[in-house]
Amino acid sequence: MTDTTTFPDPVYRDTVLAPLFEGVKTHFADHMDAINRAHLVMLVDTGILSREEGKAIAEALDAIAAETDRAALTYTGEHEDWFFLVEAELKKRLGDLGGALHTARSRNDMDHTQFKMALRTRAEDALARMLRLATALLDKARAERDTLIVAYTHGQPAQPSTFGHYLAAVIEVLLSDIRRLDAAIAPLDLCPMGAAAITTSGFPIDRARMADLLGFAAPKVNAYGCIASVDYVTGLYSALKLPMIHLGRVVQDMAFWSAFEVGQLHVPRSLVQISSIMPQKRNPVPIEHLRHMASVAAGRCDVIVNTMHNTPFTDMNDSEGEVQQAGYGAFEHATRVLDLLTAFLPACSINADRVARTTDAACITITELADTLVRSEGLSFRQAHEIAAATARAVIMEDAPLKQGYPAFAAAFAETTGRAPALTRDAFAEAVDARSFVTRRDRIGGPAPAALDAAFTGYADTLATLTAAQADRLARRSAAAQRLDAAFQDLKGPR
Amino acid sequence: MTDTTTFPDPVYRDTVLAPLFEGVKTHFADHMDAINRAHLVMLVDTGILSREEGKAIAEALDAIAAETDRAALTYTGEHEDWFFLVEAELKKRLGDLGGALHTARSRNDMDHTQFKMALRTRAEDALARMLRLATALLDKARAERDTLIVAYTHGQPAQPSTFGHYLAAVIEVLLSDIRRLDAAIAPLDLCPMGAAAITTSGFPIDRARMADLLGFAAPKVNAYGCIASVDYVTGLYSALKLPMIHLGRVVQDMAFWSAFEVGQLHVPRSLVQISSIMPQKRNPVPIEHLRHMASVAAGRCDVIVNTMHNTPFTDMNDSEGEVQQAGYGAFEHATRVLDLLTAFLPACSINADRVARTTDAACITITELADTLVRSEGLSFRQAHEIAAATARAVIMEDAPLKQGYPAFAAAFAETTGRAPALTRDAFAEAVDARSFVTRRDRIGGPAPAALDAAFTGYADTLATLTAAQADRLARRSAAAQRLDAAFQDLKGPR
Amino acid sequence: MTDTTTFPDPVYRDTVLAPLFEGVKTHFADHMDAINRAHLVMLVDTGILSREEGKAIAEALDAIAAETDRAALTYTGEHEDWFFLVEAELKKRLGDLGGALHTARSRNDMDHTQFKMALRTRAEDALARMLRLATALLDKARAERDTLIVAYTHGQPAQPSTFGHYLAAVIEVLLSDIRRLDAAIAPLDLCPMGAAAITTSGFPIDRARMADLLGFAAPKVNAYGCIASVDYVTGLYSALKLPMIHLGRVVQDMAFWSAFEVGQLHVPRSLVQISSIMPQKRNPVPIEHLRHMASVAAGRCDVIVNTMHNTPFTDMNDSEGEVQQAGYGAFEHATRVLDLLTAFLPACSINADRVARTTDAACITITELADTLVRSEGLSFRQAHEIAAATARAVIMEDAPLKQGYPAFAAAFAETTGRAPALTRDAFAEAVDARSFVTRRDRIGGPAPAALDAAFTGYADTLATLTAAQADRLARRSAAAQRLDAAFQDLKGPR
Amino acid sequence: MTDTTTFPDPVYRDTVLAPLFEGVKTHFADHMDAINRAHLVMLVDTGILSREEGKAIAEALDAIAAETDRAALTYTGEHEDWFFLVEAELKKRLGDLGGALHTARSRNDMDHTQFKMALRTRAEDALARMLRLATALLDKARAERDTLIVAYTHGQPAQPSTFGHYLAAVIEVLLSDIRRLDAAIAPLDLCPMGAAAITTSGFPIDRARMADLLGFAAPKVNAYGCIASVDYVTGLYSALKLPMIHLGRVVQDMAFWSAFEVGQLHVPRSLVQISSIMPQKRNPVPIEHLRHMASVAAGRCDVIVNTMHNTPFTDMNDSEGEVQQAGYGAFEHATRVLDLLTAFLPACSINADRVARTTDAACITITELADTLVRSEGLSFRQAHEIAAATARAVIMEDAPLKQGYPAFAAAFAETTGRAPALTRDAFAEAVDARSFVTRRDRIGGPAPAALDAAFTGYADTLATLTAAQADRLARRSAAAQRLDAAFQDLKGPR
Repeated sequence: MTDTTTFPDPVYRDTVLAPLFEGVKTHFADHMDAINRAHLVMLVDTGILSREEGKAIAEALDAIAAETDRAALTYTGEHEDWFFLVEAELKKRLGDLGGALHTARSRNDMDHTQFKMALRTRAEDALARMLRLATALLDKARAERDTLIVAYTHGQPAQPSTFGHYLAAVIEVLLSDIRRLDAAIAPLDLCPMGAAAITTSGFPIDRARMADLLGFAAPKVNAYGCIASVDYVTGLYSALKLPMIHLGRVVQDMAFWSAFEVGQLHVPRSLVQISSIMPQKRNPVPIEHLRHMASVAAGRCDVIVNTMHNTPFTDMNDSEGEVQQAGYGAFEHATRVLDLLTAFLPACSINADRVARTTDAACITITELADTLVRSEGLSFRQAHEIAAATARAVIMEDAPLKQGYPAFAAAFAETTGRAPALTRDAFAEAVDARSFVTRRDRIGGPAPAALDAAFTGYADTLATLTAAQADRLARRSAAAQRLDAAFQDLKGPR
Repeated sequence: MTDTTTFPDPVYRDTVLAPLFEGVKTHFADHMDAINRAHLVMLVDTGILSREEGKAIAEALDAIAAETDRAALTYTGEHEDWFFLVEAELKKRLGDLGGALHTARSRNDMDHTQFKMALRTRAEDALARMLRLATALLDKARAERDTLIVAYTHGQPAQPSTFGHYLAAVIEVLLSDIRRLDAAIAPLDLCPMGAAAITTSGFPIDRARMADLLGFAAPKVNAYGCIASVDYVTGLYSALKLPMIHLGRVVQDMAFWSAFEVGQLHVPRSLVQISSIMPQKRNPVPIEHLRHMASVAAGRCDVIVNTMHNTPFTDMNDSEGEVQQAGYGAFEHATRVLDLLTAFLPACSINADRVARTTDAACITITELADTLVRSEGLSFRQAHEIAAATARAVIMEDAPLKQGYPAFAAAFAETTGRAPALTRDAFAEAVDARSFVTRRDRIGGPAPAALDAAFTGYADTLATLTAAQADRLARRSAAAQRLDAAFQDLKGPR
Repeated sequence: MTDTTTFPDPVYRDTVLAPLFEGVKTHFADHMDAINRAHLVMLVDTGILSREEGKAIAEALDAIAAETDRAALTYTGEHEDWFFLVEAELKKRLGDLGGALHTARSRNDMDHTQFKMALRTRAEDALARMLRLATALLDKARAERDTLIVAYTHGQPAQPSTFGHYLAAVIEVLLSDIRRLDAAIAPLDLCPMGAAAITTSGFPIDRARMADLLGFAAPKVNAYGCIASVDYVTGLYSALKLPMIHLGRVVQDMAFWSAFEVGQLHVPRSLVQISSIMPQKRNPVPIEHLRHMASVAAGRCDVIVNTMHNTPFTDMNDSEGEVQQAGYGAFEHATRVLDLLTAFLPACSINADRVARTTDAACITITELADTLVRSEGLSFRQAHEIAAATARAVIMEDAPLKQGYPAFAAAFAETTGRAPALTRDAFAEAVDARSFVTRRDRIGGPAPAALDAAFTGYADTLATLTAAQADRLARRSAAAQRLDAAFQDLKGPR
Repeated sequence: MTDTTTFPDPVYRDTVLAPLFEGVKTHFADHMDAINRAHLVMLVDTGILSREEGKAIAEALDAIAAETDRAALTYTGEHEDWFFLVEAELKKRLGDLGGALHTARSRNDMDHTQFKMALRTRAEDALARMLRLATALLDKARAERDTLIVAYTHGQPAQPSTFGHYLAAVIEVLLSDIRRLDAAIAPLDLCPMGAAAITTSGFPIDRARMADLLGFAAPKVNAYGCIASVDYVTGLYSALKLPMIHLGRVVQDMAFWSAFEVGQLHVPRSLVQISSIMPQKRNPVPIEHLRHMASVAAGRCDVIVNTMHNTPFTDMNDSEGEVQQAGYGAFEHATRVLDLLTAFLPACSINADRVARTTDAACITITELADTLVRSEGLSFRQAHEIAAATARAVIMEDAPLKQGYPAFAAAFAETTGRAPALTRDAFAEAVDARSFVTRRDRIGGPAPAALDAAFTGYADTLATLTAAQADRLARRSAAAQRLDAAFQDLKGPR
């Protein structure tokens, strides 16, 4: 079998190699530069290369950076990929020494290191936006602590609550989502450098030093795992998907609340698309955009996780450049969802008239009347419920609000118990009042002001802890970048 | 509740409106131009607008096209979207008449019409590439009709077959995939124009004329469905996903066949990435790229289908511009898979030495010996199998190929039957020969030459039919574009 | 490496072999019986076995059937699987001849044949239910042809239409879904028998005869594909997923239409769960169950398709017994969705009061007023829209229905045009009347009675064609079963 | 609109209510019993009910338990669901007092509490099996610390490593998966009881007491979230999916390693399905079953997460009984994967002959020769690589193992450097020896014995910590069950 073909096949070049090359330029080349600098520092530190060799290579790296117009480079097929192009530039300048930078490492460990560097930036950016959303929601929840709303079950009006109470439920989920994303960042903080191709190296490398210079928390231990494990990818996209699913449910509520017939949520003009001819028509279109952008973000997370399905547990392109890039769109969509929601929810307000209208029309405080009768009149539950139900039927038949139902109530009471109620007209009105309903619910997690204040304090504490952890991480990263820069400059200078 | 905000909120503008505007420029503006021209022709044809009005608007459309540098336009927020920008340009030139072009239509029917126009181009392009791949595979299968391979079950060598037979199996699946994609194009061929916002129009529009001018096969009937049904989207992406899953399985076989220890498939140098230091190391990396690109393409199809999940059955952004664009990436990845596979498979060849080695080492013709004994020696199955098994055990113990096992066979035969076999040494060699094995399997669907030739003819016929259907569709599309152009020019000219 | 272990490992037995055995009993054993009978008939027909051998084996098969209490059998590990258990029973009765039934076949072709037999039953059952749903929807649509509803875009009231028009849109999608499922049944109708392990057989088998006796349309051609292609599985589950996504969107509308504040859809008591204390509370819970059952059905379809991802293109357990069974849950859930929806939608009715209330409150006929002014008063679009908008603003401010807005209209008309409208009070009322709005929209696909009647006729024709195709298929299946039975009885009888 | 229908519609009963009822019997009724007992204890503790009322209800609950044959009950439609059936039994025995047990609670908080109780059992069982697998893998890794294997990249032999090193990589991923599942159990440990319908209750309930009696760590704070948040579900299934994807990759390696031509992994007879006629054929079928069961488990996790997509953020059936049950299949499949893998991997062994054969044939130690030349001969990388490559080419041409390549090496060395190598024949053999290759790689994470021992100690520590956390949780659960039992008995007894 004679094989006279030469690499690369033009279709392979066009469908794979050239797109990969462009992707490296955009996403990974800066990280490869940092890896080159850190690896060189480590090679000199450990004596694998001499100071003279280190100086020469450092200067060549600087020269390449200065002389290369990255944006203008296109894939020619002369060099297999970006890595080989850089190595060729080094050899052009340094001769045989140009190959020495690649001592005790491999494209394998370099690849996953730069993938982690590119991902941690995105993950931490998403986390920052989630923290910002949580802060905005907490501010809004505090401001709307006492704002009555209709709470729904099975799509139907069920009980009064407050907007603050509702938003607090959203915040609890979001804080859990932030915790999950935060935990998913931890594996990104373990450095693969030093794994080389699979098994580390026979040279006396210092993996901890590499991790430190590149801003990682520590080396990732098992070298095979450094180049084969993809759970830093799957865990991250799994964690990013969840807030998109969860916030999408809040978005569905907002769509319903802002429907013409419901009108509980007022969306301001700045976020409504209107019709030139139908002055009453207000389309709160951002809600739809939030929904589909969250769906696409969630779906794009799945793409990446599922691309790993049934691949071998080895170094494989299934988790590398092309697939890494394919995942970044998930972050782009997620970012748009988070930012738009951070602008949208605080800008909206509750339409108190509509809340009151539905509260009345749907008799949603009626359960509290029954409870009150049990507590204050000593009735059995059956009796209390019978009286409450009869009262509700009567006011609905008259199309009157429940608070005007005292006569109907008194009649039902008498009918069931054979006596007049002790409950006065005012006490009745209080019993079926939405504000009272809410105020009375002061147990842990309830909508009463004190219960909400306690909860808000708890959320604020959690948020502060999570925010501090993020700040620490970024500070460590930034300090490492300075250490690397100093060490690299030091290579070139006189000692 | 005073609302002093003004549209658009800057975050909404940046996260949604501006990206949408850019997307329209790239993907939909040309289609909107065609819709504008066709709608104008129809309005004049039906007398809804006068010829004079038609002429004025036609000239204004030409002027806008000539005077607008589309690429340079950016979203300013002055006009809600691209549509309103064009309308503003018309009004600037025509005054009140500028609004007349929008008679009896809506952004709703225009949107889905342009989405279908953008999708059909992509779908037909993907279909063309699938037809090209099928043609290439059929050519290759014919060329490799007689090339022996080892066929596997459960990942282990099982029986001899031919590369042509294997490829024919791939072709059958691919033809089914093409049929499914072809069927998924049919709904793209029904025109929504005339549905207007939801319910058609009170004006005497001609929906069939619109469909014809825009190259559709017919109007889509139900007007509500025209703006609410998304099955033209879901059906298409479902159909596109399947070949990605199916071809991905072939890719898995190629990965195994080209493994160092297996070596059944030779991948030429032009498609192998090598190592400068390990001259024996050949990484057929395109296989991995085919795998992950197919995975990403399949996943991106899911993104779009699943974005429709639990959305209302109405006109909604969940199926519109942003989501439409999010889907195009699936076509891009699918295209790369199809093109690379079309280059890759024909370039590969079968390593006959390796096939022979595994055929021998794994005794994969042994079942045929037993069958032969049943047919020619009149043995029971039990006896035949006992003799065959004993023969196999013996040659494996001696590490010899099965064809040299006649002595062992004769001994086992005598042991089981108490007599010498009628089967001669030559007949034995023939019975366990891989070529004979294949030639004997001449039933419909078997690997024998005649059976394969018959199958190839069938595939070629199917392929011709499918190719002709595609050509007809493209010819109809092209003729319609000419009719539209002529009718539009006619509007402006003297009559 | 000495290996003293014996098959089966107890954990393997418990986690895989025993569950598989139970699955075969439930789902596949009857189909294997039919395959055994048909294969025996074919072996005798083709002379591969003698009539005497055929008779003996036929009688043994009958005896095994009569003497085996299938339900009582449990997996013991003595025989690897169900197939070997049956073969052991044959050998117990027939000695060496017992193995002859397995001439020229393999578990591979038998497996996929029985999988297709089990799947086609389910697929055709699902299709029957979809046809039944389509029929019910068409009946309902005809009955509700003239029932006004509010049609929504972007979740807001937009235009009047009719329930019949809406249901017709649903029917169009459903008919497409039926067509897709029908097409997905075609590959199930190609018989794998005769492929044997991979490559057909050296015996002179008759594959067409086998296909015919088992009720298939034809043999599946390529033998490798018979045991390796899974597109009969992936294509089917893809096609089943789509109606679940599409009907789920209708369900979302029903949820909104039946919300307390909207009330357009009345769900009867038989389908509403109520509260003992809140007499006004009506939870149309079946809607939620439809939604999540459709979601689970769709998801379970994905499970099967995605299980094939990145598996080899060979005979593999990834597409066999266990996975086949895992898919049947998708049909169970889909069946429940289809049946419940077939009961639910026809039982519901439109609340005309609520429709009228929203129609008035949201001024959804206002666009028609503008169109009327263009047509009858010769105004420009701008003028017409200005007058209509001013009219709408005025009636909304007065909280009056649009039809009472003539004075406001006349004032706005005069303001804009400087003259009185030619449009009379009655003509105005007609122009803004929802019924007139609908009646005027008589173009193809519009909600006007004649347009709908024409559409209904088209749907009925399509439905009749699809129903007839299904009936033909079932009739062919049933005739084949009778032919098989006759041929098998004939084997045993005197000639 | 008169509505003469009565609940339940028979189709609704058959498709939803009856299956739900059966599901409650199987999965939730025991948990509801515990909730009933705990709630009663709390109501008496807080004085909401008197001790006498508490005693009567406690005795009635005992009587119902004693007198009801749960398994025999079928859904009749008389009571809407299981809850109402129990309440009817209470009222039958206690009259009006029967309703008092339902004071200050709702089906909403009861439902999610029992869902969490059912899920935590499954989640902790899965975690226990993952811990058991990790322990088994660590034992195996220690036993195979020094067992050489061929490590692959891009599907091709790349470098020597050890089975212990490979398994350590698997363990690292598994430990991360365990950590993720452990974290996903935390939200299951927050009790919804006391949220009542949405907003807690006006009665002075004690939520902390309820949480404690039911074995939860604490109450879940926000009451709306208690009945609306589904992240305890989505987070759990997300976390369960990941090990299925990750272990599936190991399974793919095992499939390749055990292929006939590769043979690196020996699967014992107890786990191999063989052919009666082909004595050399060994199908390690459990590997395929592991693959598809992991795929199905992963897919079933997706079903549940995606069912939540685009549902409202309220109390809804989309996260309740039916969907909860639909998820349990994911645990069943995951359990089978974990158990089979725990049996499978330790039972397998490495075939040292095959490892040696591939090591030689593929020259996979050649990079170390180059590194050695750099270190010991002071060559540049270019020179070292040239010599190593020439040596490899020479031995491959002779089909000899690399260790016999000293003459070729010496010749290449002389050719490149113009001098004889200092490296002796023994030193050369050592440089290209697989064992030496491994031993030399003693950096953190490398395959050398000391490096692995250090890593194993780290994994053992992590495992001990995770195991202890699980034990603590189970102990707390068990102690709570005893406290609940004592408190409930106390209700009935004399004080």
